[in-house]
Amino acid sequence: MHILILGAAGMVGAKLLQRLARDGQLGGKTITKATLHDVVEPTAPEGCPFPVEAHASDFARPGEAERLIAGRPDVIFHLAAIVSGEAEADFEKGDRINLDGTRMLFDAIRRIEGYTPRVVFTSSIAVFGAPFPEAIGDEFFTTPLTSYGTQKAIGELLLADYTRRGFMDGVGIRLPTICVRPGRPNKAASGFFSNIIREPLNGQEAVLPVSEDVMHWHASPRSAVGFLIHAATIDGERIGPRRNLTMPGVAVTVAEQIEALRRVAGEGVVARIRREPDPTIQRIVAGWPRRFDAKRAEGLGFKAEAGFEEIIRIHIDDELGGRFVA
Amino acid sequence: MHILILGAAGMVGAKLLQRLARDGQLGGKTITKATLHDVVEPTAPEGCPFPVEAHASDFARPGEAERLIAGRPDVIFHLAAIVSGEAEADFEKGDRINLDGTRMLFDAIRRIEGYTPRVVFTSSIAVFGAPFPEAIGDEFFTTPLTSYGTQKAIGELLLADYTRRGFMDGVGIRLPTICVRPGRPNKAASGFFSNIIREPLNGQEAVLPVSEDVMHWHASPRSAVGFLIHAATIDGERIGPRRNLTMPGVAVTVAEQIEALRRVAGEGVVARIRREPDPTIQRIVAGWPRRFDAKRAEGLGFKAEAGFEEIIRIHIDDELGGRFVA
Repeated sequence: MHILILGAAGMVGAKLLQRLARDGQLGGKTITKATLHDVVEPTAPEGCPFPVEAHASDFARPGEAERLIAGRPDVIFHLAAIVSGEAEADFEKGDRINLDGTRMLFDAIRRIEGYTPRVVFTSSIAVFGAPFPEAIGDEFFTTPLTSYGTQKAIGELLLADYTRRGFMDGVGIRLPTICVRPGRPNKAASGFFSNIIREPLNGQEAVLPVSEDVMHWHASPRSAVGFLIHAATIDGERIGPRRNLTMPGVAVTVAEQIEALRRVAGEGVVARIRREPDPTIQRIVAGWPRRFDAKRAEGLGFKAEAGFEEIIRIHIDDELGGRFVA
Repeated sequence: MHILILGAAGMVGAKLLQRLARDGQLGGKTITKATLHDVVEPTAPEGCPFPVEAHASDFARPGEAERLIAGRPDVIFHLAAIVSGEAEADFEKGDRINLDGTRMLFDAIRRIEGYTPRVVFTSSIAVFGAPFPEAIGDEFFTTPLTSYGTQKAIGELLLADYTRRGFMDGVGIRLPTICVRPGRPNKAASGFFSNIIREPLNGQEAVLPVSEDVMHWHASPRSAVGFLIHAATIDGERIGPRRNLTMPGVAVTVAEQIEALRRVAGEGVVARIRREPDPTIQRIVAGWPRRFDAKRAEGLGFKAEAGFEEIIRIHIDDELGGRFVA
């Protein structure tokens, strides 16, 4: 089995590759090759049991998608995207990568007669726009309030139609906010959801810019990889024509996040969270989905954590070697 | 006020132009010019009180949208489309006109600094795909089962985002099936909804290919024009960021259509309907929406007929000079 990962240098892409390297197989089939792509050259994990071919380029350049699928990969993970904040700040860049790039990939596949790879597309809960019901169900409409969400929603529509027509075999998955995101604190408006867990566990102070009653929808990086693997291997017939699925997750308030941190790591760790309200971030976050009722994905076997404590423990296991600064 | 109509040679486009020519104004502002466009040259109605400039070209050719908006029209009616059946039979043609063409138009507007015309985009109930609830509400998701529906749903997403960003001032309206469609019987799968009314009123036999319990969603051509005018003149603030609206209509079964025809025109006319079941058409129609709950559009002042009898009477008035073959 030959696998292509677009966006392989990103956090989720790298973790997916680590998992595939560890498993050596996908859906019971031995992985014989991986093609990796990103704007910066992605690297293979140490001891990877299959050969890896890495490309660094602009995947929305005409002809690039054709080149990347020339080896007819059996499964394509399309994780490449300009993120929300950047797509909002630079409309043309987001439009070119998130919309044109995705369409070029799908069209390159379409033009190859008899080639219908499984394409796993990471969409986002940003396809939804406020006002929301208390829990967003599987049949709620997509009225994004960002260009990123618009571009993802368009990718979903193309994926469903191209799959219906037999041009490819797509599955779109809307990821929750990934928490705890490893690495340095970043300036994304959503960064604090991870910062307030990761930094205190690391002995560092973290800033909480919103009130503790803010509720949001989370899943661990480990779950995100699990969603991708499941989406790559699930029988498409079971999904039916509605190929885009909201992934399960954990709905918690910031207060519940902090309480879980207290239970897992103690008062000393929690004391490193500093309240510093930021009206801009508060305003942005107020427009975000809080909770989903992801029945379809759950019924199809996609699994997230049972609660936020588990999300913290996964972070401590996967990123901190089981230890934290008490 | 300068108006641009794309798709001006089509049935709805021509009727819109007739209405504008009769009114001489739009939203209380005198129409000073109309630019018309279609693949075949559209013609101005007789006695049109404002100058008309007609273009025949391929509007998805690069540079064409720029040329059409060079005169900075204040209101743009974008009715141009490859219809459902053709977009399904010829994917690339539908994709190029319905998706690229629409995007090129919106982008041409976006690139002109400080130019934010009202753009009225005719979408379709084909953005919805079965299975449906009994009545489709305003927040039901768009999972089209045709490429035409996919392309229209993408147009809606772009329209909403471009409006949100201030690139233009768009309103998308999802038209019901237009009934009674004037002209010759056509081979569209939906043709029979109009054929069974229009042909008998004209002394001709018509074929009914489906069972009488089939329910569908209709509005007259006169209402369609009314929707367009209202969408062109309504205060955008009242609509808010959810810029795409399902238009009101009349949900009736074929049996109710026939009963209305009997009441309006008598038994002799109804006797000209011949039952000739067509399994292909039955299968296609089974996947179509039956009924909507178009609360938002109604609340915003969009109005359709109160019942199917009124739809028949409008046809007799507008197309047959008030007379029919009894």
